[in-house]
Amino acid sequence: MKAGVNATGRRIDGWLTSGLTPAGPGFTPDPKGSSIHAQIVLFDGFDPLDAIAPFEVLHAGGAFSDGAVSVELVSAEGPREVVSGTGGLALRATAALAPERPGLILVPGASGRVEAPDDVPDHDPADGRPRPEEFVSVRLARALTTDLPVLLKAALDCPEVTVGTVCGGSLLLAMAGLLEGRRATSHHLAMDALGAAGVHAVRARVVDDGGLVTAAGVTSGLDLGLYLLERELGPRIAHAVEDLFAHERRGTVWRDEGMAPTARP
Amino acid sequence: MKAGVNATGRRIDGWLTSGLTPAGPGFTPDPKGSSIHAQIVLFDGFDPLDAIAPFEVLHAGGAFSDGAVSVELVSAEGPREVVSGTGGLALRATAALAPERPGLILVPGASGRVEAPDDVPDHDPADGRPRPEEFVSVRLARALTTDLPVLLKAALDCPEVTVGTVCGGSLLLAMAGLLEGRRATSHHLAMDALGAAGVHAVRARVVDDGGLVTAAGVTSGLDLGLYLLERELGPRIAHAVEDLFAHERRGTVWRDEGMAPTARP
Repeated sequence: MKAGVNATGRRIDGWLTSGLTPAGPGFTPDPKGSSIHAQIVLFDGFDPLDAIAPFEVLHAGGAFSDGAVSVELVSAEGPREVVSGTGGLALRATAALAPERPGLILVPGASGRVEAPDDVPDHDPADGRPRPEEFVSVRLARALTTDLPVLLKAALDCPEVTVGTVCGGSLLLAMAGLLEGRRATSHHLAMDALGAAGVHAVRARVVDDGGLVTAAGVTSGLDLGLYLLERELGPRIAHAVEDLFAHERRGTVWRDEGMAPTARP
Repeated sequence: MKAGVNATGRRIDGWLTSGLTPAGPGFTPDPKGSSIHAQIVLFDGFDPLDAIAPFEVLHAGGAFSDGAVSVELVSAEGPREVVSGTGGLALRATAALAPERPGLILVPGASGRVEAPDDVPDHDPADGRPRPEEFVSVRLARALTTDLPVLLKAALDCPEVTVGTVCGGSLLLAMAGLLEGRRATSHHLAMDALGAAGVHAVRARVVDDGGLVTAAGVTSGLDLGLYLLERELGPRIAHAVEDLFAHERRGTVWRDEGMAPTARP
């Protein structure tokens, strides 16, 4: 038998044929594309839990499905160390974001202070006041000065790509003018800003607007990952991951279909 | 006013006086020890979500409490890049585990395959079969060959330290012979192994056994972090973090006190 090819000819190097996780850095996903590839986008100031929660959920989904999902951390700039907004914690992006690669592209939010930058009377480091770069809004705005908006627009325009967001990730897209008229959710503190950017903001843990699936605050990234696993691979894979992680998906995934509720009963 | 000292003389460099997160890598915790310091212990093959969930919960608790909590990632070997058991993702430990430093020491579990190593008929990489080092049990056993057991014993023996675990972290302690006769929980797949190591295994999301506070599967690390915030700083800080992260702590924290339940009703 050829190295890395099993009896059915399917490539399996580094993947588990069963169990919980593929092998480490050497893993090579199925190049023929029978699997779903997920790119998780890191940018300076990202929220670690926003990124790690769906990373690990999707990764476990891949392990439970004999490699039907592969996940990687990417950045607009390519492979690099990306410093989060939380305590200097950094993760390594291993590839450049490929916006038209079929599959999933997930955008986390930023972590940091949530007050408006105007609240800071001065920025002199000598007096110990927080600096403007610590604000979530400033971190998101800075991400807009990178290639990210152009790349994410290409992703949203690509019919073979589903773009997902966690927490302020939807606000990042909205601030880039990419979500006008779309249905989306975000962290509860970002819902007003989302509406101000022309988005139909829906208070739900996960909102599925077709090629765009958005999630609410931080831990909703678990629910997003589980929902995407169910949508792409079915409920049994999603349930197995739920059980493994001791997290039951919460809330109805909001979609713009079926009957609309009338006035409150 | 002296740099980094506010009007009351309290050191505040890099910490927020309000808001969500301290400044990045340059952060210096209060050296006088009025704050709670948490060390999160990384070892090769650790589960990223086990570590990041309490890291981010405790970090946010620090931000909401004007710096009453500081958190760092540590390893038995000191500062180094530590590769997790999930898809090659790595985190950087920034210090050596200091087992007698007052505060919290949190131990995550390992990620990987959960079957027994005996299930693998051969380990030849040419045939694509998973290698034994991918197993959770093997990863935990390898951690036992480092200085970790000696350091964790010192931590458990130190009255000023609370040791917390997430997921298989309690199994790591149990395999090191450190939990005999203690009450603890773990990932549901590890409960039998915990009992076999002489632990009074309790099926709960969080078990508080005094200087030892253990949590169940992966996402229970959120609940552990929230419970420790409540225990150390009170319910208002814990609630603020819950709200920020859109995660409501679940389950009664089990403690060996009060009435014991009789036979089922």
